[in-house]
Amino acid sequence: MTWRASVLTIFPEMFPGPLGMSLAGKALAAGTWSLETVDIRDFGTGIHRSVDDTPSGGGPGMVMKADVVARAIDSVAADDRPRLLMSPRGRPLTQQRVIELSKGPGAVLLCGRFEGIDERVIEARGVEEVSIGDYVLSGGEIASLVLLDACIRLLPGVMGKAASGEEESFAQGLLEYPHFTRPQVFEGRPIPEILISGDHAKVAAWRRSEAERLTRDRRPDLWAAWKARNPVKKEPN
Amino acid sequence: MTWRASVLTIFPEMFPGPLGMSLAGKALAAGTWSLETVDIRDFGTGIHRSVDDTPSGGGPGMVMKADVVARAIDSVAADDRPRLLMSPRGRPLTQQRVIELSKGPGAVLLCGRFEGIDERVIEARGVEEVSIGDYVLSGGEIASLVLLDACIRLLPGVMGKAASGEEESFAQGLLEYPHFTRPQVFEGRPIPEILISGDHAKVAAWRRSEAERLTRDRRPDLWAAWKARNPVKKEPN
Repeated sequence: MTWRASVLTIFPEMFPGPLGMSLAGKALAAGTWSLETVDIRDFGTGIHRSVDDTPSGGGPGMVMKADVVARAIDSVAADDRPRLLMSPRGRPLTQQRVIELSKGPGAVLLCGRFEGIDERVIEARGVEEVSIGDYVLSGGEIASLVLLDACIRLLPGVMGKAASGEEESFAQGLLEYPHFTRPQVFEGRPIPEILISGDHAKVAAWRRSEAERLTRDRRPDLWAAWKARNPVKKEPN
Repeated sequence: MTWRASVLTIFPEMFPGPLGMSLAGKALAAGTWSLETVDIRDFGTGIHRSVDDTPSGGGPGMVMKADVVARAIDSVAADDRPRLLMSPRGRPLTQQRVIELSKGPGAVLLCGRFEGIDERVIEARGVEEVSIGDYVLSGGEIASLVLLDACIRLLPGVMGKAASGEEESFAQGLLEYPHFTRPQVFEGRPIPEILISGDHAKVAAWRRSEAERLTRDRRPDLWAAWKARNPVKKEPN
């Protein structure tokens, strides 16, 4: 079954962009996922195919028009894919949400530009706002590439064993442990001895402890949530 | 002064990608920012220019080699630009950090692929890990596009008044208020009356109250931080 992405944008030439290369590009060619781009400007008004107008109440910038965006959304085949608007006002994207989306039929992604999109079409068309992080981009296009890449790598056969692994960052609510590979010594820095000991249980324990240390040091928020889910068990004496 | 981006990747053809179009593309052509791509594979070993090897201690996937990545980093002119590795293990990117980066000389962006990069080169070359969000991508390339887009739009002259505005999401620690534009009524939904009242003070108050409501409903974390910084002042009776 093909995972279907429809992207509504005034810059359709930005797609598939980086997703046309590497593993996502191979998966696109293989039909693991499909990509439809809809040029919002095709639904604009007047001889200039205008898609925006000045904000009601004043202020800088322009706002994408509800009627134009509605026609663009309505041009996409109605089905059960979620309609997502990439926006810093949205709920933060998490790996859990990515996993859910990747198991579904696909997504319809609306890319905002300018100051934003008329609120009424977001409500009228049941569009869910999703944020990829607490920073502002010039538009929703690159944020859509992020969401698509995160989903596509989880589709069956795209990345194989590596992506389905339980050891990725966030898979257990911890950041990932540090990686090492040959050479044995790099600029005077040896690989930690335990990793070349051949003792699998010790390697696993070291990695777990490093993942915990990193999470504690870098992400107190994740660490607190992880501790709440994994209370320390008293060891028998 | 040109803001200089150097991107180290095994997929140099992914750049500038979407950043070669729209406002970022115009700014690139105008010399507001510059882009250098370094193909890490040029520094690989053996006739296959290998850049990765199996993880010490076992496990799925491959790890990018410290010596190869070090040579790629060392090929970039030494200067005072920060070296950033886009990684879910990094500290979360914020708009405040984007603003700081955009005011600096530029950035050297290292794009990881496979399972990750040998920890020793991250330490030895003073590379700072930065995360764009709590999800996993197939590599650092699209994350680098995110960071670059966020910085570039803030460079002088790129987006003009709109980007420098105080009313963007996060500018005051609140999500942005809803936007509206003509038509006056869309599918039976009118623009809120206050926005067409012409009363600027009332419009500003409504927008502030909507920004607070959205932040409270969608981002309890931001709302708590904002409230701590903005204690309620008692109104005189």
